[in-house]
Amino acid sequence: METNVIIFGHKNPDTDSICSSIVRQRLANKMGVNTVKAVRLGNINKETEYVLNYLGIEAPEYIEKVEEGQPVMLVDHNEFSQSVDGIENAKILEVIDHHRIANFQTAEPLYYIARPYGCTSTILFEIFKQENVEIDRETAILMISAIVSDTLLFKSPTCTPQDIYVANELAKIANIDINKYGLELLKAGTDLSDFTPSELINIDCKEFVEGNFKFQVAQVNTACIEDVLKDKENIENAINTVISNNNLNLFVFLITDIINSNSSCIVLGNNTNVFEKAFNTNLENNTAFLEGVVSRKKQVAPVLLKNI
Amino acid sequence: METNVIIFGHKNPDTDSICSSIVRQRLANKMGVNTVKAVRLGNINKETEYVLNYLGIEAPEYIEKVEEGQPVMLVDHNEFSQSVDGIENAKILEVIDHHRIANFQTAEPLYYIARPYGCTSTILFEIFKQENVEIDRETAILMISAIVSDTLLFKSPTCTPQDIYVANELAKIANIDINKYGLELLKAGTDLSDFTPSELINIDCKEFVEGNFKFQVAQVNTACIEDVLKDKENIENAINTVISNNNLNLFVFLITDIINSNSSCIVLGNNTNVFEKAFNTNLENNTAFLEGVVSRKKQVAPVLLKNI
Repeated sequence: METNVIIFGHKNPDTDSICSSIVRQRLANKMGVNTVKAVRLGNINKETEYVLNYLGIEAPEYIEKVEEGQPVMLVDHNEFSQSVDGIENAKILEVIDHHRIANFQTAEPLYYIARPYGCTSTILFEIFKQENVEIDRETAILMISAIVSDTLLFKSPTCTPQDIYVANELAKIANIDINKYGLELLKAGTDLSDFTPSELINIDCKEFVEGNFKFQVAQVNTACIEDVLKDKENIENAINTVISNNNLNLFVFLITDIINSNSSCIVLGNNTNVFEKAFNTNLENNTAFLEGVVSRKKQVAPVLLKNI
Repeated sequence: METNVIIFGHKNPDTDSICSSIVRQRLANKMGVNTVKAVRLGNINKETEYVLNYLGIEAPEYIEKVEEGQPVMLVDHNEFSQSVDGIENAKILEVIDHHRIANFQTAEPLYYIARPYGCTSTILFEIFKQENVEIDRETAILMISAIVSDTLLFKSPTCTPQDIYVANELAKIANIDINKYGLELLKAGTDLSDFTPSELINIDCKEFVEGNFKFQVAQVNTACIEDVLKDKENIENAINTVISNNNLNLFVFLITDIINSNSSCIVLGNNTNVFEKAFNTNLENNTAFLEGVVSRKKQVAPVLLKNI
């Protein structure tokens, strides 16, 4: 292991990106490697803040970019468009991820561990087991939080039997009621009251590039879609600014009802026809209701990518 | 596991590509999955033929292309330019590989297991151990053959301590003298007498794409470089045909002396300046001698890629 390796999840980090990078550092530490450090590429969201406060631990240090040749380990993403500025010239030693692979390349061989699970922490649990490293209570709660967040407490179509199995194994170690803790965690994430419209669409936003077509899909979780849509006009202005600043063809803002497992979305850009074709729907006032859709990764991004 | 999954290594298959695809099928079979089948994307070379004859087993079936949606598992490569025709629209379930990642993308999450070892079979050995699946003698010899071939009997700079460790563990299972067997195996691969010049440069040839720059690096192993260079003029004609048919910027033909661990090469194309810059050398009569160079993956491809 090289010196001064940094570990990070994607930009606009969610709970999996933050918790899995901390957990990956702890795994290294427990295996006697102390030259690695978890960092983050953006602000901590309220859901993740709940986890860190619950455990009384600090957020990883924020970094903006990496220098050429910087040794790095990626968790919870691989696409360069979602990664740190300068990633093209970093030295990527390892990736642990549960997403499709795209917009990613290296000059040298590396460790790459991807599994099609609902959460990076589910993969990390398996690595702890393989390496025969003990999982302490705090680390277990970090991983439970990531799994609850990514699978919406097992209700997302991205959730696999292995995520449920691992979360329950971790709950035994942590000795917590996973449904009670999980619901509190998700509720913490739905408090959107403090956010300006432009912050709102940036809480959890990912960019995708296919050929010359560039689009972003942002997502917020809520217990009440109407509450979010009250500010629709200002949100649309914020989205149009992002589209113009980033030369996007399309922007999809998913407002996901985590109680009833549906999403409403605001769709803007010159190529909203791609969205309409992908979901066989007509936008009304730039919005559409997507019944049963809660997962960007499984139900939105691939459908859009196929229809470009 | 889906039905009718096919497993294959790269085009112009070497011993690792053939043996590792057979071994991956056997691993699945031993885990109770019988809907997977190893296939190959090209002719069996003489070295691999030695292994298959030694064990008395059949070569995998040859396939030329895959249909849209075909479920596939890749071993020993990931770059689409080295893979089966139609790979862009196949359903990639898994990759087990030891190369850099590039020219690769999927629409969906997948299993991806990469480790920076000298050989795919070294990774497969670790998966057998993790899954607690017994390795029989024949399977051990398939894996030993792949490791000996890829590491030039541990002399290549791509060889890692883990490759040596695994090869020795496998030698215990197989109860063979790895140096004796390995030397016979490598020697079988240096018999180039049957090949026409155009066959010679296609025995082990890989294509690389970086932006608009496309090049191929072919390699043969020999005990006597001069023997191969006797037919230099005809080899050059064959290379120029490949360059013209495939619109290549550059073609590098490595003739590797496996006894002394050096290579001579024939370099042609409109952009031989990239080669000259990369290796800080001047070509004479389209050739250069590269002291200590035996590995395309470690010593040639990345150096060229950095100098495009």
